Amino acid sequence: MSIGFLGLGTMGQPIAHNLLRAGHALTVWNRSAAAAQPLLEAGAQLAAQPADAVRGPVLFSMLADDAAVRETLLERGALDALPAGSVHVNMATISVALARELSALHAERGVAYLAIPVLGRSDVAAAGQLNLLAAGDAAALARVQPLLEVIGRKTWYFGDAPEQANAVKLAANLCLASAIGTMAEASALVRGHGVDAADFLGMLGSTVFAAPAYQNYGGMIAEQRYSPAGFKTTLGLKDVRLALNAGESRHVPMPLAAVLRDQFIDAIAHGDGELDWSALAKVAARRAGQA
Amino acid sequence: MSIGFLGLGTMGQPIAHNLLRAGHALTVWNRSAAAAQPLLEAGAQLAAQPADAVRGPVLFSMLADDAAVRETLLERGALDALPAGSVHVNMATISVALARELSALHAERGVAYLAIPVLGRSDVAAAGQLNLLAAGDAAALARVQPLLEVIGRKTWYFGDAPEQANAVKLAANLCLASAIGTMAEASALVRGHGVDAADFLGMLGSTVFAAPAYQNYGGMIAEQRYSPAGFKTTLGLKDVRLALNAGESRHVPMPLAAVLRDQFIDAIAHGDGELDWSALAKVAARRAGQA
Amino acid sequence: MSIGFLGLGTMGQPIAHNLLRAGHALTVWNRSAAAAQPLLEAGAQLAAQPADAVRGPVLFSMLADDAAVRETLLERGALDALPAGSVHVNMATISVALARELSALHAERGVAYLAIPVLGRSDVAAAGQLNLLAAGDAAALARVQPLLEVIGRKTWYFGDAPEQANAVKLAANLCLASAIGTMAEASALVRGHGVDAADFLGMLGSTVFAAPAYQNYGGMIAEQRYSPAGFKTTLGLKDVRLALNAGESRHVPMPLAAVLRDQFIDAIAHGDGELDWSALAKVAARRAGQA
Amino acid sequence: MSIGFLGLGTMGQPIAHNLLRAGHALTVWNRSAAAAQPLLEAGAQLAAQPADAVRGPVLFSMLADDAAVRETLLERGALDALPAGSVHVNMATISVALARELSALHAERGVAYLAIPVLGRSDVAAAGQLNLLAAGDAAALARVQPLLEVIGRKTWYFGDAPEQANAVKLAANLCLASAIGTMAEASALVRGHGVDAADFLGMLGSTVFAAPAYQNYGGMIAEQRYSPAGFKTTLGLKDVRLALNAGESRHVPMPLAAVLRDQFIDAIAHGDGELDWSALAKVAARRAGQA
Repeated sequence: MSIGFLGLGTMGQPIAHNLLRAGHALTVWNRSAAAAQPLLEAGAQLAAQPADAVRGPVLFSMLADDAAVRETLLERGALDALPAGSVHVNMATISVALARELSALHAERGVAYLAIPVLGRSDVAAAGQLNLLAAGDAAALARVQPLLEVIGRKTWYFGDAPEQANAVKLAANLCLASAIGTMAEASALVRGHGVDAADFLGMLGSTVFAAPAYQNYGGMIAEQRYSPAGFKTTLGLKDVRLALNAGESRHVPMPLAAVLRDQFIDAIAHGDGELDWSALAKVAARRAGQA
Repeated sequence: MSIGFLGLGTMGQPIAHNLLRAGHALTVWNRSAAAAQPLLEAGAQLAAQPADAVRGPVLFSMLADDAAVRETLLERGALDALPAGSVHVNMATISVALARELSALHAERGVAYLAIPVLGRSDVAAAGQLNLLAAGDAAALARVQPLLEVIGRKTWYFGDAPEQANAVKLAANLCLASAIGTMAEASALVRGHGVDAADFLGMLGSTVFAAPAYQNYGGMIAEQRYSPAGFKTTLGLKDVRLALNAGESRHVPMPLAAVLRDQFIDAIAHGDGELDWSALAKVAARRAGQA
Repeated sequence: MSIGFLGLGTMGQPIAHNLLRAGHALTVWNRSAAAAQPLLEAGAQLAAQPADAVRGPVLFSMLADDAAVRETLLERGALDALPAGSVHVNMATISVALARELSALHAERGVAYLAIPVLGRSDVAAAGQLNLLAAGDAAALARVQPLLEVIGRKTWYFGDAPEQANAVKLAANLCLASAIGTMAEASALVRGHGVDAADFLGMLGSTVFAAPAYQNYGGMIAEQRYSPAGFKTTLGLKDVRLALNAGESRHVPMPLAAVLRDQFIDAIAHGDGELDWSALAKVAARRAGQA
Repeated sequence: MSIGFLGLGTMGQPIAHNLLRAGHALTVWNRSAAAAQPLLEAGAQLAAQPADAVRGPVLFSMLADDAAVRETLLERGALDALPAGSVHVNMATISVALARELSALHAERGVAYLAIPVLGRSDVAAAGQLNLLAAGDAAALARVQPLLEVIGRKTWYFGDAPEQANAVKLAANLCLASAIGTMAEASALVRGHGVDAADFLGMLGSTVFAAPAYQNYGGMIAEQRYSPAGFKTTLGLKDVRLALNAGESRHVPMPLAAVLRDQFIDAIAHGDGELDWSALAKVAARRAGQA
């Protein structure tokens, strides 16, 4: 199938490779063309402009945030280039408000709009094992499902309004932020009593919390290893803010998210915006006078 | 070995059975003698008073809270009955302050004091698969380790001050409370966007949070099944309060614990104190006007 | 002096009247022309479009929020109509981000931009006794100070960047929201102990908190009289959100604002968005099971 | 009248002086006798033990906290020395739980127990202008009212259960803590935008918050003058904790109090426990990276 692909960052790159490897004809675009090089070598075509990447019945996009989506899709014309009857799969973690706006704009043009943000880091993407959080028109989803098979291990469907998948993605990231913030706070507590936080976190990750989220982030906190960042503190703040906004738009109080937002801001105020978001543990330790 | 055992509640009962089954001579005491019946039938001796249960070199106690420990150990004389050189294994989840006080009182009497609160519910206790969170004198711990083998799957050692194990236990329960509170808040968020909370929680428990804590409590929240309670809301409040106090005594700010405390109080104010602590989800839903 | 005036709501109306009464020639515009009637009868001219109101060296605007300012000033051309050398006095409570954007746009056009949000309700505005929170070019402020004399009792100057006045206004409104939220919480506490909240609030407002803010809002809470609204719950949420955003843009954690935001959302979720923002007391009472 | 008086600290001293000056025969006791010297010179008698101070129909006590009250009244026998029919006026800021316990103990002995904590610092006490927050038996209060006239400017009556006055006192102190914490947070916000916090706080205290609480604490924050302490950070933490406990005992969620508690702990963790509680402003500034 002929597929357009916008956005070749850490996540977009391996996803595009998997589509290419499955035999599809890819036309790719990225803000800085250099990132496209490995894909071109593997057989993809380069589009000079976002609109030029629209070549067939399906467009994928994996852009950084609301601003990048707005610029690429709306201002630089990719949306207008989509023919009626085509499908746009937007994998970005964006605000529920923008998702709603995009739904309407696609509908006006007779283009099916699917929001399919993903769970998993770049190595998981490379292995084609992402969890795909999908929402939008079910028939359109069925059409692209064969493509999704080469990207993810499972497609989770949350409803026919695309923003529902974005709400789920933000909720899932909130759960991760909270797990990190809770380990940070609990570690400060045991450390205050002379217990090695690594002992505590090791026990947690081997017993009631034997899940990747606790093991990975718990390990980083135990070793105070916040660099290189898997997911930056500034991105943590962005996603928690989007979750709070998504809540506010439906009148959902979110007191835990509010505390976490506050701590990400504290981290950034202390120059740690580029560290991994598990650096929330530095905030908890500093507030306790432990650092 | 001749062992005394105080407290035959939901957790004490199966632990005592395992010790008995391993061939030890048990003298048991419980506030209401009826609970001792199954153990007596299995060969244990009944003590009329807490002090009468002190028969050999080791005393186990698994009492409900600070008040029960204070009454049984201090006021009703069990501590005074312990001979110098004996070992007391206290498995209760108590305050760090009481743990410190008990350490001093045992030391005065030449009695080794081990705090070994446990992770796991009664079915895990029955299977002898508890995780044992231990602190206190290492030599004393080595002496009782053969007994611990029949109770738990692993002994985790956190330091030579007994209260360190209590701090770890409170920190672990805080993590559980936070996981519940976070699932509650995130579920209210997705529900506000028309997503079935069960779909969201099912996905979480199958992916990044594939751990028992998320699966069990997530399932209860998904089904709004808060009764019978595995662990009551009132107990959740008690443990979060003890965690906050343990933090305060070492100058550790704990903003997430503070939010959770507030929500347990809200649940109790609405008559849900006897429900499982996963009923925090009712609080989140109610505040969002969803219930 | 010939003055343009945009926005004749609850606050704009009495301010415009005071300028007219002081002998100035006013050209006024309002989204719904009906609101302009009393001013026309008093001698003002009606502008058909925002840009038509720009008649002399000074333009005042008192619009509802960011969206109204953006529409009126930017989209409907008022800003473009301002001649170089003129002064625009923006009295709206807007975001710090928009204030910054407007500063740049005015500077490009050689128009002096003053942000002068006000403290005081409509009766205070009618009496010409507003407190004027000003920031922007000091020379421009000196030029309009004679006009400000008929509007307010005092001009407070906070710096030469216009957004500084907006930050101060948001900070002041946060203080009001917090005073309300605190009275709400403290009232729930004493009520929980059988004390009449009116007795408590009456004492507060006659002693350590003998200030208008506590007396007025305390009285409303004591009498549970939240309608008619002096300032609506939805506006309270808006301003606290703007304060949080203003903080985030400078990396300032704001945990109290975050709690208040959460409670405004709770109020709105329960259908109380149109009540006075002192209806936060309903939230506190409800959470305590008192209502 | 012959009056006993226990506790001659910063507050007890001037209150006792006023009673003496009004012509009453005072027998005083203080943990360190040195503090009694000025009163003895003015004609008071010294009691060697708390119980010895009980000489007539009325006993006043103004002790530091729960522990001091418990020791002086219960352990050292002052309560047992009170004859049936006498009146005990307890002016200390204590927990609602202890107040309830003391009510029962006094009732058993036929002694009237009045809780009358006060609002006002030592200079206000010296001027006999305290606000007296009273609860307990109304007839007993009427008996001592002539004595209260020389101590305070007004007696506020909150109910016949003594703990009601303690709940009110804790609620009032919570309002003060919140005013301080809010000024701290709002000051960090405006400072983040380059506004001098002193300008902001000066404006607040001259307008909507023209009340002693905002003027005094606002001035200390503006000048960053946290020493000498009028009321120490450690005492602020104590009173907010007592307020939270008082809330919990009646199922009242108190999210603002919880945030303030957290910040007092942060202050103490950074060595500022002995500073005035307005040093919460240091916490807000530090979290924003401003200090």
